[in-house]
Amino acid sequence: VSGKQHFADALHDRMEEVESQVVVGLDPRIDRLPQSLVDDVVDRHGHSPRAAAEAISEFNRRVLAAVHENVVAVKCQVAFYEKWGVEGLKAYARTVRRAWDRDMLVIGDVKRNDIGSTAGAYAQAHLGGRNEGMWRQARDFVVDAATVNPYFGTDGMEPFLERASKRKKGLFALVRTSNPSSSELQGIRADDGEQVFRKVARMVEQWGEPYRGESGYSLLGAVVGATQPDALESLREQMPHSLFLVPGFGAQGGGVEDVVPAFDENGGGAVVNSSRGIIFAWQTPPYRNRYGPDRWMQAVEAAAAHMQTELWEATH
Amino acid sequence: VSGKQHFADALHDRMEEVESQVVVGLDPRIDRLPQSLVDDVVDRHGHSPRAAAEAISEFNRRVLAAVHENVVAVKCQVAFYEKWGVEGLKAYARTVRRAWDRDMLVIGDVKRNDIGSTAGAYAQAHLGGRNEGMWRQARDFVVDAATVNPYFGTDGMEPFLERASKRKKGLFALVRTSNPSSSELQGIRADDGEQVFRKVARMVEQWGEPYRGESGYSLLGAVVGATQPDALESLREQMPHSLFLVPGFGAQGGGVEDVVPAFDENGGGAVVNSSRGIIFAWQTPPYRNRYGPDRWMQAVEAAAAHMQTELWEATH
Repeated sequence: VSGKQHFADALHDRMEEVESQVVVGLDPRIDRLPQSLVDDVVDRHGHSPRAAAEAISEFNRRVLAAVHENVVAVKCQVAFYEKWGVEGLKAYARTVRRAWDRDMLVIGDVKRNDIGSTAGAYAQAHLGGRNEGMWRQARDFVVDAATVNPYFGTDGMEPFLERASKRKKGLFALVRTSNPSSSELQGIRADDGEQVFRKVARMVEQWGEPYRGESGYSLLGAVVGATQPDALESLREQMPHSLFLVPGFGAQGGGVEDVVPAFDENGGGAVVNSSRGIIFAWQTPPYRNRYGPDRWMQAVEAAAAHMQTELWEATH
Repeated sequence: VSGKQHFADALHDRMEEVESQVVVGLDPRIDRLPQSLVDDVVDRHGHSPRAAAEAISEFNRRVLAAVHENVVAVKCQVAFYEKWGVEGLKAYARTVRRAWDRDMLVIGDVKRNDIGSTAGAYAQAHLGGRNEGMWRQARDFVVDAATVNPYFGTDGMEPFLERASKRKKGLFALVRTSNPSSSELQGIRADDGEQVFRKVARMVEQWGEPYRGESGYSLLGAVVGATQPDALESLREQMPHSLFLVPGFGAQGGGVEDVVPAFDENGGGAVVNSSRGIIFAWQTPPYRNRYGPDRWMQAVEAAAAHMQTELWEATH
C-alpha cells in the first residue's frame, strides 16, 4: 500500500476513499478469542504457543475481512505477538500481509528506540530497506508506519526519519500517552513553566519539519491519548504539521467528543484507534445483546462502522 | 542461571565467583563478522536473512566460548537480531540458551514498555511465566533481566516489577542514556531545579524499594551511561539500592576512571557493558596488531580479560 507516496498523503487518500478516520487495533488476547476458533487449533496443536499463534492469525484474518471497508489502517500491538515467541511474530508478519491484501495501511505499534546505531537497526527491522551491501534484508516486520519512543532525543530519531523518508514510511512518536500514570514523567513542569510532553511535542514538530508531504503533514506524527482531551486540543495547535495517532478510545474511556479536537478543519490530520471496543465487540454491550458468539464477525463489523460514522459526522 | 535466587543476589554471586564486573554486549553487525565464518554460511544459504542469522549465531557461540570465564553476563541488543526478522530472533533465542549453558546471566537489551496491559504482555515475553490458564507460554525471548523505558510512569512499570519479582528476574530502567542527544529530554530542568533524569532516578529507586534482595539491591536497576561520569557519581548516591547497568564503555568513549563512581565501596552494585570493544577487538588497536583475523577469538578473550582486570583493580 505505502512505498509509492508520502505516508501522510497515502493516509489522507485512504481516509477520503473509505471516509473513515478509524484504526482498528489488532491486540489479540487468547482468552477473549471466539471459543470455536480456539477449540479448532487446540485440537490440532494442544495449548501450545504455536496453537495460540494460529488462533490469533485466523482471528485477525476474519477481523480484517469484517472491518476492511470501514477503516483506514490496522495497528498491531507487537507485544501481544511477541509474548507467543517466534510463532507469535510469524502471526504478526502474516497479519501485516493480509491487511495489505485488503488495501489497509498497517501501523506497527512497536514503541522501539535506542541510541543511534541501534535505532538504525530497529528502523531497518520495521521500515525495511537494505544497509549491508549484498545482504537481502528480512521483511518479516516491515510495516507502513511504526511508533517510536522519544526518550533518547534527536540521535535516536534520525535513523528512523532518514529511513522513513527514503522508504516512504511513517512514524508516530510518543508525546502524551493514554495511561493513568502518564503525567509522572510526561507532566513534569520545566523551569520555564512548560510540561515535558509539550517540549517533546515541540521536538517532534521540529524533527518532522524537513519531511512534509503534499498534505502539509510530516511523515513523523505523534501519539496523543484520547484520555487527555485538553492536551489534544492545545497540541493540535502546537503541532499543525504532525499527524496524530490517538489511542485510548472506547475501552480506555475516550469518547467522540474527546477526540474531535485532534482533527484539523477538514477532518484530517488524525486517526483514532480502538482495539478491544471493536475486535471484542460481541463480548460487551451494546453488541453483546444483538450478536451472539456465532455472529461475532458481524458485531466487529458493526462496531467499526459505528465508530467510523460517529467520527466522520462529528468532524465533517 | 537465575530463577532460584533474587536477581541482584545472583548477579553479585556471579561477580564474586568470576571476579568480574564486565558485561559483553552481543550486538552482531554482519559486515564486521569474521570473513571465514560469513563465507561458510553464504556458501550454503546465499546472502539471505537465514544465512545472516546463522552467521550471527555461530559468531556468538564462539564469543561466548572466548569470554565466559571473564564476564558476569552477556547483554543481547535485540535490535541487531530483530532486523533479520524471524530468523534473527531464533538466533537471539539460541544465543540466550548457549550463554546459560556456560553459566552466564543474560540481559535482554529490549528497552520495551507501553501502557499497563501491554507492558504485561511484554513482561511475559521477556521474563516468562504464565498468564492464561492452560496455555503453555513461549520461552523464546525469556532472559534473566530486561531493560525497560520509563516514559509511561508507574503503570508501565508495575507489570514488569510484579512478574520479575515472581520469576526472580531483573530489570534495568533507562535513566541517563549514553548517546550525545540524551540531554534533550532527560536533561530538561524542572521548576524545582532538578533535571528530568534525576526525577526518573528517584522514581526508579522508589519503584524498586519493595523488591530488595539480601545484597540490599533491588531487582530494579538503572541504565546510566559511562559517557556521563558526573551523573554516575551523583546518581550512585541518590540510588543506593539500584544496580547500575553502564553502557558506553570503550567504543562510545567511556573509560575506567569514568565508570568507577558507578560502584559501591565493595566494588559491587554495577556492571559495565562493552560491545564493539570486545566482540570486534581484533579489528582495532591494540589487538589488531597482536592478533590477525585467524586469531580473532583470542583477541576477544584478551579484550574481555583486560577490561575485567582493569575494572576489578580500580574498584578493589
